[in-house]
Amino acid sequence: MATTISPLAPKSVPTLPPVAGVRLATAAAGIRYQGRTDVMLAVFDNGASVAGVFTRSKCPSAPVEWCRARVKGGRARALVVNSGNANAFTGKTGRDACAFTAKIAAGAVGCKLSEVFLASTGVIGEPLPAAAFDGVMPRLVEDATDEGYVDAAGAIMTTDTFPKLATATARLAGTTVTINGFAKGAGMVAPDMGTMLAFVFTDAPIAPAVLQALLREGVVDTFNAVTIDSDTSTSDTLLAFATGAAREAPRIARANDPRLLPFRKAFNAVLANLSEQVARDGEGARKLVEITVEGAVSKQSARRVALSIANSPLVKTAIAGEDANWGRVVMAVGKAGEKADRDKLSITFGGFPVAVAGAAAPNYDEGSVKKHMEGREVRVGVDIGVGRGKARVWTCDLTHVYLEINGSYRS
Amino acid sequence: MATTISPLAPKSVPTLPPVAGVRLATAAAGIRYQGRTDVMLAVFDNGASVAGVFTRSKCPSAPVEWCRARVKGGRARALVVNSGNANAFTGKTGRDACAFTAKIAAGAVGCKLSEVFLASTGVIGEPLPAAAFDGVMPRLVEDATDEGYVDAAGAIMTTDTFPKLATATARLAGTTVTINGFAKGAGMVAPDMGTMLAFVFTDAPIAPAVLQALLREGVVDTFNAVTIDSDTSTSDTLLAFATGAAREAPRIARANDPRLLPFRKAFNAVLANLSEQVARDGEGARKLVEITVEGAVSKQSARRVALSIANSPLVKTAIAGEDANWGRVVMAVGKAGEKADRDKLSITFGGFPVAVAGAAAPNYDEGSVKKHMEGREVRVGVDIGVGRGKARVWTCDLTHVYLEINGSYRS
Repeated sequence: MATTISPLAPKSVPTLPPVAGVRLATAAAGIRYQGRTDVMLAVFDNGASVAGVFTRSKCPSAPVEWCRARVKGGRARALVVNSGNANAFTGKTGRDACAFTAKIAAGAVGCKLSEVFLASTGVIGEPLPAAAFDGVMPRLVEDATDEGYVDAAGAIMTTDTFPKLATATARLAGTTVTINGFAKGAGMVAPDMGTMLAFVFTDAPIAPAVLQALLREGVVDTFNAVTIDSDTSTSDTLLAFATGAAREAPRIARANDPRLLPFRKAFNAVLANLSEQVARDGEGARKLVEITVEGAVSKQSARRVALSIANSPLVKTAIAGEDANWGRVVMAVGKAGEKADRDKLSITFGGFPVAVAGAAAPNYDEGSVKKHMEGREVRVGVDIGVGRGKARVWTCDLTHVYLEINGSYRS
Repeated sequence: MATTISPLAPKSVPTLPPVAGVRLATAAAGIRYQGRTDVMLAVFDNGASVAGVFTRSKCPSAPVEWCRARVKGGRARALVVNSGNANAFTGKTGRDACAFTAKIAAGAVGCKLSEVFLASTGVIGEPLPAAAFDGVMPRLVEDATDEGYVDAAGAIMTTDTFPKLATATARLAGTTVTINGFAKGAGMVAPDMGTMLAFVFTDAPIAPAVLQALLREGVVDTFNAVTIDSDTSTSDTLLAFATGAAREAPRIARANDPRLLPFRKAFNAVLANLSEQVARDGEGARKLVEITVEGAVSKQSARRVALSIANSPLVKTAIAGEDANWGRVVMAVGKAGEKADRDKLSITFGGFPVAVAGAAAPNYDEGSVKKHMEGREVRVGVDIGVGRGKARVWTCDLTHVYLEINGSYRS
């Protein structure tokens, strides 16, 4: 856990209201860190609908495989998350550690193994000492309260510099429901999935298939539009839980139910808020970078160009150096391999044109651009000029702090 | 031009013998730098076969477009290369600068416009002050000698810390022919094409189509197997010239001519030597990294996995930190999206097993691995375990020096 808070952190940590049907607790199990919490439990006493999206890594962690197999069941009673050890690339030992953790959680909560969901974050390739959970699990279940969100968000941090929380309410056919979420990110963050771990909780009565549809659509322009360093984790996990404790609200069983619209909007706002916080806490980030690409042949094409820019070390180091180096943006557009016409390409920084129709802008406002580059939030706009596809992604600059964090993380 | 020579530089700069039919000269035209040469001319008094491979960027530089259109003609009389300005993203001005440069070169040499080849490297998006060539061109033609290779290699450097030269001889049906080459690289280097600029010269009588075939095959496991920072330049250019001045040798008109075999071997050795020097001079490089992937479903698949590892900032920072962090290698294998089976994956550092069949190696020789990581050359081996495809790529570590170079290059 880094000691200096990112200068891009939100001014304050939001206070999350309770979500009926969700209780949380944390403990220090001593998985890797000393003197801090490293395990969190969420209990859904009356169960919850569950949905999840996971890393597309071909070498996923054991907990990702565990969840992927069980999310189809659609029903959750408990979520156990630890930091310090990712339980990834741990072979049979890793699978055993999952089964063991689920068993003690199921025993303490009083549910089936298949109703326990797991996530782990931290070092890869070392066996997870799951026995450590055994000593803390009964007390976690007992201690869990409906106010534990900030502590829970803190317990799952690794190189994060601040806890990431978001909340929203929505009207669901006349009843107000709550949506809470927290996430961790920082490094090894790239689309498919965009963050390492994120969890969203609501008291709305949403059927699992509907929750899954909401999640799948919701991540496209939120978590999957964030890239810190192009490296996709083995462990990326986003789980959503809907307890249905808001009993006055109607149970939503179809994704195209028109009553779902305000909920969908609030749900997406929570995902957007959390994913932006992940970008704001990219390892070593000193500037939040928003990249908007328009005029591409399709949304997909715009997205690929935007990610090519967002993942370019040369663009990211230029932004770190407050250098309005649009030549490197041109380079990144070109290397994306998507349809582009150099002589139609236009680029803005902070809305100020720096390149127009394939050449330097004639009335380049150097002072305004310089001032924009010196700020905490840098906006890069690209108009490819060949179509109507548009996409937006978020990243951060590449700084010496990133190298310091990652050159000595394990040792 | 950096002041500190890369610690990975070859012990000495090779002395290149003359290649009959090739004369070289350099000058200080003041394009951008002060007090150094920044333009080089190669003259082929009796003409030469020419072949070229170029960046696949969708936003190529004006000289790349110039060469691509003219290389089909197969005939060269002059090559003009400048550093300091890439003449990329310069619109009509850029095309005009190419035409102007070619015109004064053709005038001074006494050849057609279509026999002049051009390359530029340096800052993107600023007009190339081609008029500066006008003052130096006649003297360049006059001064050109057959011994100017080291000076020529120096004139095209940008952030390179040492000139990159290589030479070889080969027997061509009883006659000894010479192959000389020089290159520049350093930053914005990634496959398709692998280096910014490289030029190869031979006195062998090779038909243009054969030279093109040699080049296309030769780059696959050499220049296109080198990545410094995953960023593909707008300007990558590799041109080969064959003067045919070795008149005793037979003219080779078919790529499958068996007499070509020893020449092909020597030609590929020059490409391999130059491309390795590019990796050794990656911006900020402190360690040369060789990544070998085997057991993939195909060579192409192995290559994609190898590049995913080579381009991972987390792998590169770990190597910079001398950390045998094979978990990040697993991550990079997983994110490549290629067929892999976590439980069959094995990883070595310097030949020492660190992970076997999907888990940490049981008898991990920590001392030997540590010693290997502390060296100047780091070898990462990955066995995917699902097929017979194999590929090898070269990169360097990601250090603070890379950030220093690229956070302040333009300003």
